[in-house]
Amino acid sequence: MTFLISTARLEAMLREDAPYGDLTTQALDIGDTRGQAVLRAGATMMLCCAEEAEALFRLAGCTDAHRVAASGGLLEEGGTILTAEGPVSGLYLAARAAQALMETASGVASRAARIRSEARSARPDIVVACTRRHLPGIKDVMLKAIMTAGCIPNRLGLSDSLLVSAQHRAFLGREPAHRWVSRVRAVQPARRLVVEAFSVDEAVLLAHAGVDTVQCDGLSPEQFAEVSRALADHGSRPVLAAAGDIHEGNAAAYARAGADVLVTSAPFAAAPLDVKVTMDRLG
Amino acid sequence: MTFLISTARLEAMLREDAPYGDLTTQALDIGDTRGQAVLRAGATMMLCCAEEAEALFRLAGCTDAHRVAASGGLLEEGGTILTAEGPVSGLYLAARAAQALMETASGVASRAARIRSEARSARPDIVVACTRRHLPGIKDVMLKAIMTAGCIPNRLGLSDSLLVSAQHRAFLGREPAHRWVSRVRAVQPARRLVVEAFSVDEAVLLAHAGVDTVQCDGLSPEQFAEVSRALADHGSRPVLAAAGDIHEGNAAAYARAGADVLVTSAPFAAAPLDVKVTMDRLG
Amino acid sequence: MTFLISTARLEAMLREDAPYGDLTTQALDIGDTRGQAVLRAGATMMLCCAEEAEALFRLAGCTDAHRVAASGGLLEEGGTILTAEGPVSGLYLAARAAQALMETASGVASRAARIRSEARSARPDIVVACTRRHLPGIKDVMLKAIMTAGCIPNRLGLSDSLLVSAQHRAFLGREPAHRWVSRVRAVQPARRLVVEAFSVDEAVLLAHAGVDTVQCDGLSPEQFAEVSRALADHGSRPVLAAAGDIHEGNAAAYARAGADVLVTSAPFAAAPLDVKVTMDRLG
Amino acid sequence: MTFLISTARLEAMLREDAPYGDLTTQALDIGDTRGQAVLRAGATMMLCCAEEAEALFRLAGCTDAHRVAASGGLLEEGGTILTAEGPVSGLYLAARAAQALMETASGVASRAARIRSEARSARPDIVVACTRRHLPGIKDVMLKAIMTAGCIPNRLGLSDSLLVSAQHRAFLGREPAHRWVSRVRAVQPARRLVVEAFSVDEAVLLAHAGVDTVQCDGLSPEQFAEVSRALADHGSRPVLAAAGDIHEGNAAAYARAGADVLVTSAPFAAAPLDVKVTMDRLG
Amino acid sequence: MTFLISTARLEAMLREDAPYGDLTTQALDIGDTRGQAVLRAGATMMLCCAEEAEALFRLAGCTDAHRVAASGGLLEEGGTILTAEGPVSGLYLAARAAQALMETASGVASRAARIRSEARSARPDIVVACTRRHLPGIKDVMLKAIMTAGCIPNRLGLSDSLLVSAQHRAFLGREPAHRWVSRVRAVQPARRLVVEAFSVDEAVLLAHAGVDTVQCDGLSPEQFAEVSRALADHGSRPVLAAAGDIHEGNAAAYARAGADVLVTSAPFAAAPLDVKVTMDRLG
Amino acid sequence: MTFLISTARLEAMLREDAPYGDLTTQALDIGDTRGQAVLRAGATMMLCCAEEAEALFRLAGCTDAHRVAASGGLLEEGGTILTAEGPVSGLYLAARAAQALMETASGVASRAARIRSEARSARPDIVVACTRRHLPGIKDVMLKAIMTAGCIPNRLGLSDSLLVSAQHRAFLGREPAHRWVSRVRAVQPARRLVVEAFSVDEAVLLAHAGVDTVQCDGLSPEQFAEVSRALADHGSRPVLAAAGDIHEGNAAAYARAGADVLVTSAPFAAAPLDVKVTMDRLG
Repeated sequence: MTFLISTARLEAMLREDAPYGDLTTQALDIGDTRGQAVLRAGATMMLCCAEEAEALFRLAGCTDAHRVAASGGLLEEGGTILTAEGPVSGLYLAARAAQALMETASGVASRAARIRSEARSARPDIVVACTRRHLPGIKDVMLKAIMTAGCIPNRLGLSDSLLVSAQHRAFLGREPAHRWVSRVRAVQPARRLVVEAFSVDEAVLLAHAGVDTVQCDGLSPEQFAEVSRALADHGSRPVLAAAGDIHEGNAAAYARAGADVLVTSAPFAAAPLDVKVTMDRLG
Repeated sequence: MTFLISTARLEAMLREDAPYGDLTTQALDIGDTRGQAVLRAGATMMLCCAEEAEALFRLAGCTDAHRVAASGGLLEEGGTILTAEGPVSGLYLAARAAQALMETASGVASRAARIRSEARSARPDIVVACTRRHLPGIKDVMLKAIMTAGCIPNRLGLSDSLLVSAQHRAFLGREPAHRWVSRVRAVQPARRLVVEAFSVDEAVLLAHAGVDTVQCDGLSPEQFAEVSRALADHGSRPVLAAAGDIHEGNAAAYARAGADVLVTSAPFAAAPLDVKVTMDRLG
Repeated sequence: MTFLISTARLEAMLREDAPYGDLTTQALDIGDTRGQAVLRAGATMMLCCAEEAEALFRLAGCTDAHRVAASGGLLEEGGTILTAEGPVSGLYLAARAAQALMETASGVASRAARIRSEARSARPDIVVACTRRHLPGIKDVMLKAIMTAGCIPNRLGLSDSLLVSAQHRAFLGREPAHRWVSRVRAVQPARRLVVEAFSVDEAVLLAHAGVDTVQCDGLSPEQFAEVSRALADHGSRPVLAAAGDIHEGNAAAYARAGADVLVTSAPFAAAPLDVKVTMDRLG
Repeated sequence: MTFLISTARLEAMLREDAPYGDLTTQALDIGDTRGQAVLRAGATMMLCCAEEAEALFRLAGCTDAHRVAASGGLLEEGGTILTAEGPVSGLYLAARAAQALMETASGVASRAARIRSEARSARPDIVVACTRRHLPGIKDVMLKAIMTAGCIPNRLGLSDSLLVSAQHRAFLGREPAHRWVSRVRAVQPARRLVVEAFSVDEAVLLAHAGVDTVQCDGLSPEQFAEVSRALADHGSRPVLAAAGDIHEGNAAAYARAGADVLVTSAPFAAAPLDVKVTMDRLG
Repeated sequence: MTFLISTARLEAMLREDAPYGDLTTQALDIGDTRGQAVLRAGATMMLCCAEEAEALFRLAGCTDAHRVAASGGLLEEGGTILTAEGPVSGLYLAARAAQALMETASGVASRAARIRSEARSARPDIVVACTRRHLPGIKDVMLKAIMTAGCIPNRLGLSDSLLVSAQHRAFLGREPAHRWVSRVRAVQPARRLVVEAFSVDEAVLLAHAGVDTVQCDGLSPEQFAEVSRALADHGSRPVLAAAGDIHEGNAAAYARAGADVLVTSAPFAAAPLDVKVTMDRLG
Repeated sequence: MTFLISTARLEAMLREDAPYGDLTTQALDIGDTRGQAVLRAGATMMLCCAEEAEALFRLAGCTDAHRVAASGGLLEEGGTILTAEGPVSGLYLAARAAQALMETASGVASRAARIRSEARSARPDIVVACTRRHLPGIKDVMLKAIMTAGCIPNRLGLSDSLLVSAQHRAFLGREPAHRWVSRVRAVQPARRLVVEAFSVDEAVLLAHAGVDTVQCDGLSPEQFAEVSRALADHGSRPVLAAAGDIHEGNAAAYARAGADVLVTSAPFAAAPLDVKVTMDRLG
């Protein structure tokens, strides 16, 4: 397990959906009946957020909640994730949030794992890093999902790392690369300097200007291989990252082309994976 | 426009990504340079959350932010969404959050619109309602997206409406439907009573028990048509809703089968649609 | 029990009153002494929020808190509600918040129960629904109180239901009722359409225009009975709701006049009911 | 004006009631129509929270909101409070929250003003202080209301002042009053020491023990006068406060009996005072 | 112990530092290893916030956290404060927050204790009160620290007490002191009236105008003694407080000069005191 | 300017100190009087948080607030920082928070600037990075202060970077450095690997194991120089950072000893620097 989503966030998830309880349970007058909920995988998946699902049931008053699988576990369709016992009012409060959280997170994790697996089939030590390009406000869920899959965040956000993008360079005018590289180095000598490149020439130029990572955006695998070959004899070659529409279908090609790191947003576009909820009366 | 996502949520989006500003802008010392950002559609889309994107730039200190398209607008690839002017430090804070929010929301809106359009091609007055089955914590974005597309929320959550699901019925034992229908009516005479049915027989039985909406889950279009025919002569036929894996590919079939309402989670699985950001120096 | 007020809200209640502890307990140096608090009804009441009172003591560090009565229970003056044991510093933090929360909530619940009881004496299946017209920011307490009394929320708020009020109709110009009823039906076929009427004629007109509920506002019981009679032979008569200054003194009259639902704000104007706190040294 | 309720609280009020906009306005498709709302007093009242009502309309997007009366103003039935112009979607978001906030706050303020006026008719320099015994979580509204009426908070909460209550004394055993008075003085020489007394004898004893304020709880006006007489010749007589079921009906009696301060919870039990909202189309 | 900092604040502290877990622990793959952390004093100190440190470890998932010292305890260098056992991932989340919280709070508490001790060496019953002049947003930590040291908050903030400062008096024009003293008394008879004085004459004048506390700001000990002597025969002499650059070096002098209370901001300028963290593998 | 502290944080600062306004202003009845506040440096300082001070006055209702100095500006004693005009009630709400925020932040910034200046006098390109060892919960203020001074955060927190500390190594047993260095590289090839060393030998060993930065903790300048010399011929020498009690007194010595980066917590122990507030009546 990587980390736990905070209690405050989980409580907010519960209250968003059921601020004043489940009206149907109240109208049927079954809230105090004791029951059991079982959550199972509805598809083959790399599971994610089972820990938080368990916590959601506990927060909803179902103290007997126990997960039997963990984030990162591989489940077949029908595989049990967790069981929770408690009053029906509590089971209902947590069930949909737990289900939908795992569906989204497992969808992202499973796709991230697939991209990584494809890439590693071509180059076993390649690393898959994911971008910040997901719906804002849910970084905790997205990072947990991709880290569960063995991927890493390319960066947490704007404040923690240096990435000179095309948009930054629009403001640098004609200042040559080695000049602004020096300027950044002077104030941030102990942080990696990552720079986006959009052509083979630019990538080579930036490598010679001394950046730590050249993140090639939008190059074909063939172009990427060209960059890689051009820098083969370079003293301390920068890390070469491939970005821009990287997915399971081309990950291996970029890996073969010499990418050290793949930078992808594709997992965030994954469809949710089905989780089934069943409930039964106890006693 | 339907509604605006709250300022508190938008501020949290900005701070999640850049709690302490953009380190790269700071290191390059371009934060006070004045620039312009333009956001354009990177694909054909039904736009969503342009209002919030504009607000994000303003919150980040770019007072000259103006959208030229609105939620619900149909854009071709390259169509301009908004322009923002201000200091580079502010442009950077808002750009990714604005972009990614619109990408996700427009993806959901566009798919919701497609499903609705397919359904209405077969039955012009059919309504498409969306479930609660999305990542918890983002109901505002999801509801804005589906409402922008002319769909409606099936319900806001557990507290506002009556939906007797399979999971509720697990706790009702052998109590006949007309009995618990009466019990619910007695406490909630002025709310619609929606009940899930999982077979033709059950749907007919529930209709006769007097529920307001029978939400048929997992029936084929043929089975659904059978329900529809069986109730054709029913005095005040309940609303018939089709649920369970409804999408753009089968929406018309269910509409032709007599569904008054389609209940779908499919829009929430939509992939984001590309939004492009470019920045330029001003003056 | 209907639902529990969230932990975050209860913590905020504690901190509003005692952000830095009880200064008097600190000055007297009795904070670590162990004591017991007993909370008792100071008047005849329908109790509300005993569950939250217990939770407040636990949050304040009094782990031995146990309620002996529950929301919805009928207490005579002097009846015990809960006992809590713990350090004096903790007893003090929770006591006033627990007391005042139950006083307000029990006042609302007791008045709501009285109105419902009056109405049901005349028509046993009548339902009492409460409006949104209470101090904003406390919907959780108000809904818990009225639901504890067997009443229901007329609606949770503006986003979950359709209620065409006089204020909406001010913007509809001379558009005839059946036209805008159709327009609303087209986009919201599966939600009840409730419309306010302010005269007998208008009520009848709206019923003929096909709305689901006519909410008659400000009609006398006699006028209300007139509406009721006029619609007696109407095929599927709409639900008839009486609103506008409904209280325990006229609830039975409206019930006899044929109201299916009474819509009232009166419980929110109830005075708090006294709860007594006593404390004693333990051991 | 005393103080303004914070923007964060006002935003939360709006979102509690309408998290996703007004569904009816959306269904009628009148959200972008421009209109005007006018709020008027529906009863004679001391107005409270007009400033916040104006702010609520502005937060909801109605930039042309202007109050014509202020907190503390005395209004006759029909007196105009404020007008707001803007899109119907915004008018609707704010109208109920603004109305209900002013109704509750004006009810409290008006009753507080009445108690103060009664008391001052008997003793022009008497002060009315209000307790902490209101629904927890709304101290801002309650304090604004009573301060608007010229009353003061007896204390903000447990952390800011010294009030030795019966409940504290339960933990002091047989320690004589002058002893614990000394102990408190030693640690808090620059804060007033207020102590509750429940009989004439106790009040006199505590006065002799040197407390700053004796808060007589539950004494009749006659008993209170006895305390007052007994301390008439006392060197530096403590402040004498009357507490325990003080209201407009007995305030003058306690004032005549020599009370310097009346401590009351009665305003918090005031019923809301009617505020009327009308809306009209503009242009 | 005085009071506990709220769980919400402690959770926010954890998340500020490690929103997505400890990346290094994850990369080393040691997160599930069980370990023990021991926190010890790195200097002689009056300890503060050990209770919160324990809570931080529990919140981070280390259920076996036990403190062996308490706020207010005097520790030598090397003295053990607490031990915590749990998974390395949890130990890491809490360790720095727990350490740094205690370092800051113990620094403040120790300096506050030193000032109080110096003052009391000259006058054993003197009281040390601390101002509001610390970084805003951390009142809970600052008040816990100074109260742990036996000092008191001079006031909680602007809303709970009366302190007429030089800045208030700038708006009073030439109104004589006895006039505005009367005006304040009339509305606030049961709150102490504290007034700042900036010269001997002014102090004497204010005493004669009947204020409860004269807070002499910026007077030398000699000048302060002059005030004290001038008021020696004053009937009910006001409390005399010395403020303005009061610290351990002059506290005794002001005590000898007759100050009843010292008002100081000096503890908030204290440097943190070192707390050491060591970790070891268990089992 | 680096970045702005969020509005939500600034609002919380205001409300912490004055939840219900300034009682003294209310009692003196001067709240609506118009006045001006001027804030000036009370000492020589590098100013910090003037932007936030201005925002605090605006949030408090003083729309005419204008700063005349900016974060990073060097002020002499008496230098004007900002002026604000508005009602006295608003001036008072903001004045103390604005003052105390700038006092703390400017104290930290000024000390950070001094350390950096000392270090750069010996080695002009050295970088000063600050640790996470400050009171948790105030990272925004602390980072703004040190970044204003030209220093950088060594890391934002645990989640954004790799720093193998002594405490991590306690769980690595006897695994040789090159092994765990490889393991970390495999999962995080594009993040710098920083490792703490506590002796000359360890520093050299880690450099040979291939880490990116060796952060020498607790070495004397002489020992540090020894490390530096030992690695002089090392192919791609790691960055050498000096940590552990680095301050203005030894910064130059470590710079001369070959440190590329100084890692210090000393600025967080800086005493606040005096800011003066004066107020005057307008008109």
